Amino acid sequence: MIIMPQIETQAVKNYLLDLQDRICIAVEKVESKQQFIQDQWEREAGGGGRSRILTDGEVFEQAGINFSHVYGKQLPASATAQRPELAGCQFQAMGVSLVIHPRNPYVPTSHANVRFFIAEKPNQEPVWWFGGGFDLTPYYPYEQDVRDWHQAAKNICQPYGDDVHPRFKAWCDEYFYLKHRNEPRGVGGLFFDDLNQWGFESSFSFMQAVGNGYLSAYLPIVEQRKNIDFGECERDFQLYRRGRYVEFNLLYDRGTLFGLQSGGRTESILMSLPPLVKWKYNWQPEPDSPEAELYEKYLTPKDWV
Amino acid sequence: MIIMPQIETQAVKNYLLDLQDRICIAVEKVESKQQFIQDQWEREAGGGGRSRILTDGEVFEQAGINFSHVYGKQLPASATAQRPELAGCQFQAMGVSLVIHPRNPYVPTSHANVRFFIAEKPNQEPVWWFGGGFDLTPYYPYEQDVRDWHQAAKNICQPYGDDVHPRFKAWCDEYFYLKHRNEPRGVGGLFFDDLNQWGFESSFSFMQAVGNGYLSAYLPIVEQRKNIDFGECERDFQLYRRGRYVEFNLLYDRGTLFGLQSGGRTESILMSLPPLVKWKYNWQPEPDSPEAELYEKYLTPKDWV
Repeated sequence: MIIMPQIETQAVKNYLLDLQDRICIAVEKVESKQQFIQDQWEREAGGGGRSRILTDGEVFEQAGINFSHVYGKQLPASATAQRPELAGCQFQAMGVSLVIHPRNPYVPTSHANVRFFIAEKPNQEPVWWFGGGFDLTPYYPYEQDVRDWHQAAKNICQPYGDDVHPRFKAWCDEYFYLKHRNEPRGVGGLFFDDLNQWGFESSFSFMQAVGNGYLSAYLPIVEQRKNIDFGECERDFQLYRRGRYVEFNLLYDRGTLFGLQSGGRTESILMSLPPLVKWKYNWQPEPDSPEAELYEKYLTPKDWV
Repeated sequence: MIIMPQIETQAVKNYLLDLQDRICIAVEKVESKQQFIQDQWEREAGGGGRSRILTDGEVFEQAGINFSHVYGKQLPASATAQRPELAGCQFQAMGVSLVIHPRNPYVPTSHANVRFFIAEKPNQEPVWWFGGGFDLTPYYPYEQDVRDWHQAAKNICQPYGDDVHPRFKAWCDEYFYLKHRNEPRGVGGLFFDDLNQWGFESSFSFMQAVGNGYLSAYLPIVEQRKNIDFGECERDFQLYRRGRYVEFNLLYDRGTLFGLQSGGRTESILMSLPPLVKWKYNWQPEPDSPEAELYEKYLTPKDWV
């Protein structure tokens, strides 16, 4: 482990701020009706962020794209569950986190996050690591979209070794899983955490490849599916499935729980929740329906490339 | 602590089953359009339940009334957080739990729960306790309703000592609190747990008083407010505020987390979630509006009687 020079931290921060800018510009290019609004905020316990949200758009019903850089005296439980030796450390965390809820049920919801942590204890060298990933949550999936999404993920990982994509794909399947439903959240993608064993340069460049790769994987799917006709039945199923998104984020998501536990800005953290959601008791899809196909063909981890 | 004879356990179970019946009958009397459907279920790890749900009614948009009796080899974390000495105990848990989401925003949402736990370790006498309570979550409250609700709670507690109502009212305010919002869930009521120090007879009779008292406190409010005219603005605010209900239940509610962690029946546990919900980024009520009054006058714990 090496001490992080200030200059490296600043380089990560610059990258993240620029990534947020680029994603917002690209999303606004596709969206015809609405633009992002920005809220800059400070956190009492240290740090702050730049939240951007686009609501009630024609293509995007809601898109929330957060940058935050927070520090504090004690890493919260959600960040040390896997690393008990870091409990009680001072920390810095910075990242970009986004969730996009499209209006058309034929366009999947997508999520991406890239983050950088530094934890410090008195008289010890700081520990740093990168984390992140992206995952796709379709309602009425097209097989080609799912294949392209995973191919993009694989291409990002390839330069870092043959084992990287299988590992980070499996980690994603494992992470975005609703145990109480016995169901994955969507069709997955990439997830990684605690990444420092490649050294700073490679770890940082991988994190950038994930951040940059997200948009080029997602936007073509949006473009291709955003004008497909849909009716009340498809809309209803989309709102019902959005309930699973809420369940995952509030019951399991480490980023959400980290944010809420570390005194983060609630409105920015919960930007990930969909604007309109339905719950229906014991709802089951009709056999051989497109809704049943989602469960049977897609909500079961498999190799798509 | 005394060993629970089988006959006492059966008496509690009989009471709970009858309570569920009586509540369903009373709710159906007020509801004009829909009736309860029932699902009887068994739990793989032991026990089962009887879930009843009424959906899409004229008065009640959703009413979920659960009876369950489950047992298992290990009390889950959510049940032993306050009682680490019971970790790893065999347990039995039985209870009635209900949430009623009315359609009219002038009628508050209400929740009630009564429960009985027995935990056992080899070669030790079993530990038993009662828990429960009820609380009210209005959108457009009437002061008289809130006063009547708390008066009913006080009347239930009075025979058990002068300190009981203040303690269990404060416990309710403390329990139904959204830390990340710095906001109570509603106007409170009663909450108690770990009740055994009064002995079995009194503890059981108090639990019955709470179960029986819930309906007589809630139904008059429903009757009086269910026909008040409302528009899109009131409906919208109701859907928005329902988001807080979801946040509380998935982030904090011990019953929900106990159920999900102990391998309970997900559909029955999540019957508490509202059928339709909105989230809006950084929404704030207009100054001096009825919505602002909810926050300023009601969502702040106070003595109502």
